[in-house]
Amino acid sequence: MIMDIDRSIKDLAVKVKAAAQVLAGAPTSEKNKALLAMAAYLRKQSGFLQEQNRLDLDQALTAGLSPAMIDRLTLSDKVIEGMATGLEEVAAFPDPVGEIVRMWRRPNQLQIGKMRIPLGVVGMIYESRPNVTADAAGLCLKSGNGVILRGGSEAFHSNMAVLKVLHEALKTTAIPASVVQVVPFTERQAINSLLACEDQIDLIIPRGGEGLIRFVVEHSRIPVIKHYKGVCHVYVDSGADEEMARNIVINAKTHRPGVCNAAETVLIHQDIATSFLPQLVAALNAAGVEIRGCAKTCALADAVIPATDADWGAEFLDLILAIKVVDDFDAAVSHIVKYGSDHTETIVTCDYQRAQEFLRRINSSVVMVNASTRFSDGGQMGLGAEIGISTTKLHAYGPMGLEGLTTTKYIVYGDGQIRE
Amino acid sequence: MIMDIDRSIKDLAVKVKAAAQVLAGAPTSEKNKALLAMAAYLRKQSGFLQEQNRLDLDQALTAGLSPAMIDRLTLSDKVIEGMATGLEEVAAFPDPVGEIVRMWRRPNQLQIGKMRIPLGVVGMIYESRPNVTADAAGLCLKSGNGVILRGGSEAFHSNMAVLKVLHEALKTTAIPASVVQVVPFTERQAINSLLACEDQIDLIIPRGGEGLIRFVVEHSRIPVIKHYKGVCHVYVDSGADEEMARNIVINAKTHRPGVCNAAETVLIHQDIATSFLPQLVAALNAAGVEIRGCAKTCALADAVIPATDADWGAEFLDLILAIKVVDDFDAAVSHIVKYGSDHTETIVTCDYQRAQEFLRRINSSVVMVNASTRFSDGGQMGLGAEIGISTTKLHAYGPMGLEGLTTTKYIVYGDGQIRE
Repeated sequence: MIMDIDRSIKDLAVKVKAAAQVLAGAPTSEKNKALLAMAAYLRKQSGFLQEQNRLDLDQALTAGLSPAMIDRLTLSDKVIEGMATGLEEVAAFPDPVGEIVRMWRRPNQLQIGKMRIPLGVVGMIYESRPNVTADAAGLCLKSGNGVILRGGSEAFHSNMAVLKVLHEALKTTAIPASVVQVVPFTERQAINSLLACEDQIDLIIPRGGEGLIRFVVEHSRIPVIKHYKGVCHVYVDSGADEEMARNIVINAKTHRPGVCNAAETVLIHQDIATSFLPQLVAALNAAGVEIRGCAKTCALADAVIPATDADWGAEFLDLILAIKVVDDFDAAVSHIVKYGSDHTETIVTCDYQRAQEFLRRINSSVVMVNASTRFSDGGQMGLGAEIGISTTKLHAYGPMGLEGLTTTKYIVYGDGQIRE
Repeated sequence: MIMDIDRSIKDLAVKVKAAAQVLAGAPTSEKNKALLAMAAYLRKQSGFLQEQNRLDLDQALTAGLSPAMIDRLTLSDKVIEGMATGLEEVAAFPDPVGEIVRMWRRPNQLQIGKMRIPLGVVGMIYESRPNVTADAAGLCLKSGNGVILRGGSEAFHSNMAVLKVLHEALKTTAIPASVVQVVPFTERQAINSLLACEDQIDLIIPRGGEGLIRFVVEHSRIPVIKHYKGVCHVYVDSGADEEMARNIVINAKTHRPGVCNAAETVLIHQDIATSFLPQLVAALNAAGVEIRGCAKTCALADAVIPATDADWGAEFLDLILAIKVVDDFDAAVSHIVKYGSDHTETIVTCDYQRAQEFLRRINSSVVMVNASTRFSDGGQMGLGAEIGISTTKLHAYGPMGLEGLTTTKYIVYGDGQIRE
């Protein structure tokens, strides 16, 4: 059985690679036509999608999945419309492939440039949310990459249905349908098989819980782009605009507490703590946020639970916030270097020097001044859409959009130069 | 013993990481002073370096190493002077750290940019050539990275001596000496220990034979930048300038046959073969090159050995060249896609359309028109110097210089924006 899965996934990967070589040279107009056809077919086949989705939902109900999980799994009319408009938006983005990033001339008249090209084939491993299947297929297609998708077993019927509809759509276009594939197995072994296709797959993107991601990193010889977690910090500097600081903290914590760019820890300069902390805590309490504070925080405000060591660097993903009063700017930087996850940090300050120093000294993937950590997102930052986020420094670092799905080759225009 | 090596290398890695955090924020002027001090000390301590190098050379002679190996191992006056001037050249390069690659404004007035930062700590694993120790140390220091070097056991005393001199030099500067370290063990186990330091080391660069590189890829959870081999192709198009084509082939094959950017296969359009092949083969023979040709090549020229299947895609690293006559441009492209190693390919042509098509359709890391493959080199391409070359598409693809030793973080300037 293991051998069967191995063989069958290798065959799939070989097929995707061959199709991806055709896609890599496809004109932008053909790729855009394909994206629009995919959107149209998703709308047209929404009945079929919901019928297949029903099979997954029934199993999920039987298995007693949480309402939140079931919500994420449901292909409602709104979710399907979102998938379709998502693909139309990707069609409207500029094509990154073929862009000449830079060009220069050498003393011997060689003209050298860097041209953007697709990576080749992307392997994507994710949990729940069948709409990711269409999103990822769209971004990979636009950037000229083949993609093999491996969604959660609880969304198996939905994912296969989305694939069927996308293939129907692609068959009406010049793009080979095989550029998009879904792994047709629910066994965990299928992930191992996928991670062994190092001659066909150029990049693995795992999205999901830390356990899944660690499993992938451990078993892959293919490069992996990942982030384990997002422990985002807001540092409120002395002399900060208190209203701005309060708005940013509330937004960063409560706008969508379950996502990786939500704030988990707020650091407050001691010179502003006495005036700022009590009103911040009151506002957070009013918004339903549980506060876990250092000793000084507990002394300055009511309704604060004393923080334990485990609260610094914790990813709560919930309406819980750790607050610490720090002695000075340096102490804030040290705390972030020690407990941060290289995701996103922001300083709230009116001081030009400190703003610049924060941007220079913090090497997280996104470093902000006077803005909510919630803007750390491909769409919000103008990358178009994001296929993932990286907190490892190789290749992409931070939100990863279409450009992150490409690499550059060197091109050299000569007129007969030989090396002396 | 294995535990001791593991522990001791982990300690070393922790030390390098701490020092690298200081180096990451060091001003360019301090880094340049350190590089110049390193160069001065190498010159001043050449006696000590050669005395320690003698220990390695004596062992090498006893072990019966080949004259070529002994030559690579020798720290002659010329090699030491080369190491010193290499460091001075790196000091003169622009500092990649802190460069703002691009900046844009969002509709909500957020100003977003990408700033170049060091990767962190680089682990470099290589064979022979103790001068690589100084070269790699210089490039990593300039790009703000700590580095742990693991050279060949046959160069152990030489590498430790170079390290001692570099440390003496760094102690006279503001840069912590610990940013450069050499693994003080000759056991193979030390490589495994190094590859396990995933929390300290950001990137592994192996340089050496394919066996070493495959071992590293198999055992590393840290991202690896590598190239297994260079099977570079020269395609001579119909209507090419025959003199230019001959010069490029001779240069690409014979200028330095033992390196990865030397040509290994020449493809010749059948329309030019009758006139071009006999004179090319004569010129190659005169230069001492053994030719392994396809049936048509054998029919058109004397002194050609019939090629076997194994000759296509072979990396000879010697004065041996495979030659094939192809039906047309498409056949040349297909041959390269099938047998190439994603290193470097060049077309010799007078046809504008074919030149552009070759640059577009071949996705090797360096693709050239009318130039020798020998230019596929960081120094020759104007990257300053190269720490390695990558034929995998993630992060760097092709020659990798100072810029390849950095990544970019996003910086965001706001004035109180929160997410709606």
